[in-house]
Amino acid sequence: MTVIEEMGVLAKKASRTLATAGEKKNEALRAIAKALKDNASSIIEANKIDLDNGKENGLSASLLDRLMLNESRIDGIAQGVLEVAALPDPIGTVISGSTRPNGLKITKVRVPIGVIGIIFEARPNVTADAAVLCLKSGNAVILRGGKEAIHSNKCIADIMRSAIESVGLDKNSVQLIEDTSRSSSVELMGLTEYLDVLIPRGGKGLIRAVVENAKVPVIETGAGNCHVYVDESADINMAANIIYNAKTSRPSVCNAIETILVHERIAKDALPEIKERLDEKNVEIRGCEKTAEILGESVIPADESDWETEFGDYILAVKVVSDFDEAVAHITKYSSGHSECIVTSDYKSARRFTEEIDAAAVYVNASTRFTDGGMFGLGAEIGISTQKLHARGPMGLNELTSMKFIIEGDGQIR
Amino acid sequence: MTVIEEMGVLAKKASRTLATAGEKKNEALRAIAKALKDNASSIIEANKIDLDNGKENGLSASLLDRLMLNESRIDGIAQGVLEVAALPDPIGTVISGSTRPNGLKITKVRVPIGVIGIIFEARPNVTADAAVLCLKSGNAVILRGGKEAIHSNKCIADIMRSAIESVGLDKNSVQLIEDTSRSSSVELMGLTEYLDVLIPRGGKGLIRAVVENAKVPVIETGAGNCHVYVDESADINMAANIIYNAKTSRPSVCNAIETILVHERIAKDALPEIKERLDEKNVEIRGCEKTAEILGESVIPADESDWETEFGDYILAVKVVSDFDEAVAHITKYSSGHSECIVTSDYKSARRFTEEIDAAAVYVNASTRFTDGGMFGLGAEIGISTQKLHARGPMGLNELTSMKFIIEGDGQIR
Repeated sequence: MTVIEEMGVLAKKASRTLATAGEKKNEALRAIAKALKDNASSIIEANKIDLDNGKENGLSASLLDRLMLNESRIDGIAQGVLEVAALPDPIGTVISGSTRPNGLKITKVRVPIGVIGIIFEARPNVTADAAVLCLKSGNAVILRGGKEAIHSNKCIADIMRSAIESVGLDKNSVQLIEDTSRSSSVELMGLTEYLDVLIPRGGKGLIRAVVENAKVPVIETGAGNCHVYVDESADINMAANIIYNAKTSRPSVCNAIETILVHERIAKDALPEIKERLDEKNVEIRGCEKTAEILGESVIPADESDWETEFGDYILAVKVVSDFDEAVAHITKYSSGHSECIVTSDYKSARRFTEEIDAAAVYVNASTRFTDGGMFGLGAEIGISTQKLHARGPMGLNELTSMKFIIEGDGQIR
Repeated sequence: MTVIEEMGVLAKKASRTLATAGEKKNEALRAIAKALKDNASSIIEANKIDLDNGKENGLSASLLDRLMLNESRIDGIAQGVLEVAALPDPIGTVISGSTRPNGLKITKVRVPIGVIGIIFEARPNVTADAAVLCLKSGNAVILRGGKEAIHSNKCIADIMRSAIESVGLDKNSVQLIEDTSRSSSVELMGLTEYLDVLIPRGGKGLIRAVVENAKVPVIETGAGNCHVYVDESADINMAANIIYNAKTSRPSVCNAIETILVHERIAKDALPEIKERLDEKNVEIRGCEKTAEILGESVIPADESDWETEFGDYILAVKVVSDFDEAVAHITKYSSGHSECIVTSDYKSARRFTEEIDAAAVYVNASTRFTDGGMFGLGAEIGISTQKLHARGPMGLNELTSMKFIIEGDGQIR
């Protein structure tokens, strides 16, 4: 048995005690929060090794910033753990139920999924964030982080395991794979006997690799080629505000937009005002011919690849469309099914857009940046699913659960 | 582009019109029911070719019976279609919703999954049953049935496609793969660009092949290694009734039981009474040593493989356990997570069993044979999921849907 298979066995065992651990889980979470704060200095020390290695290996400033932990960030992580502890426990929730004509009482109840694998990249905070969401929802978790953060991750995982043990739960509820070679992640993707689901958290490359190679069920997260369609009847000022916010407030995240589509009857008035706002952040515009006619020379001609690309940067593709149907057809062709928005003052357009667009989140007159577990009121988020099975959109605690039917009778036979 | 890829393109296109087809879907279902009855003679004719081929190829009597269609069976299929038409439409159902502090109205709404693939074996009725459930839930379907039923399947699919077209919907909402070679099913399993989910319906071998080879998401159905645990406090007569029913009413189905576990303090009284009932159907008993001590020579000694096997036949494995915990441990080790039952009169045992057993359906004092969409009041069933993601237990129309968030604002930005 390999190291990772052994972890699978231990995780399965831990998952069975977690399934009925009830309030003990919150005790463990509070112990984790306290232990993270109490041991902040050793986390910072371990993190310093990762940072030094990162500098030596030429990591970019933004990657080093994602990697960096200081007292206030550790406080933030601990605070997040306490917030999860304060959320209602999803396990045992009665989803629905009925009494059948023959007297059988059937109840559909939320239960944990079992063992969850998380593959992530250079952010050591994910070690704690992901583990506590799994723990709260009664699942054992096997974490496999990137090599850039391995010292930080090990330190945080050890602290969490001790804290979990201190309240009498199985420390193997949380395990970290210490081998950060490619082979360990490949092995995790094939751990069908022990892993109930694998959730990749990170960039496009990581997610694609997991989706393509995993034999265990995967929940695909995070790809976001999002659009704003400015309808003929749009309030231009509102459209400019929403586009400015959805493009520039944080261009690297998956709920930022990449392309806007503008109805030709409003394009001449709307595009200059939209561009004026975007110029504040020097957003590069890649436009269709009509866009260039209206906005002039600064527009870089867009080609097919621009409609397909998640820029993740201060770049926006712009297309003038002849009508509502062309906008819907464009979105249907290029959308990654994450978040799509219409700006309109027309009731029928709003209604048609929400019906016809197939995406996790469909907006009328609001920024796509709201697609987020916290913003949607889920209390916490383990990722944003862009697939249609099991979970779609922001995934909170409920999305980390399965369910079972409980059937109570007094001797019924069929 | 291959034939099957082209079917994928057509299915995707059809799925978009189906998503907002509303009451048209029910019109199509009623047209299908009528067309099946009106064309019963051509179905029977096509079926005769399959039956003749089957006899020539030495199909067993029970397989030939599954394959056979006559007027009354076709009437039954048509009746089933009308029942599905009469069910409430799951699409558009509001699952939940809220108004956020910033005024955003968020609504979670049921939508179709998109394109569903169904791989099935020799039962031609599945062609109609599966297609109408997909249609009702707004999904396009690509069917791939076994070669034994290909003439019947083609005839039924053609009738359905014409009926769908006659009410103005896209006939490619239902497509049948006519190539019944292995390569066509392998290609379907890899159709990631067009297929949102693949559901295998059939025997263990088929399901295993699909789960192991598919690149598209799969919903695993049907494996059933189910148990009845007779607790120390059980009503022996009730236990014997439930075991007799769960074993012998239809041994080949997945919700039939394969093993019973009997508490040692009740075994001496219970086992003879249970055996007496099972003797009515000449059920073979494969027992542990203690079982043999109590029941005598007719017991065949059980080995490890008997605890693992889904007999699907008049065979029952029997084990005497020393306590509740041993019963739970045995079930945890060998259960396929389908249906598990305790017979008890003890409140605490009932409570613990429903909490600790991890299965789609957990019973107290009732036959496992009730695990069925109809019996659970779902109105219809496309299969019984034994996995934990997306759907678990009997899958009705809701389980053939996904959902999306609709967010309505008046200019909110983040």
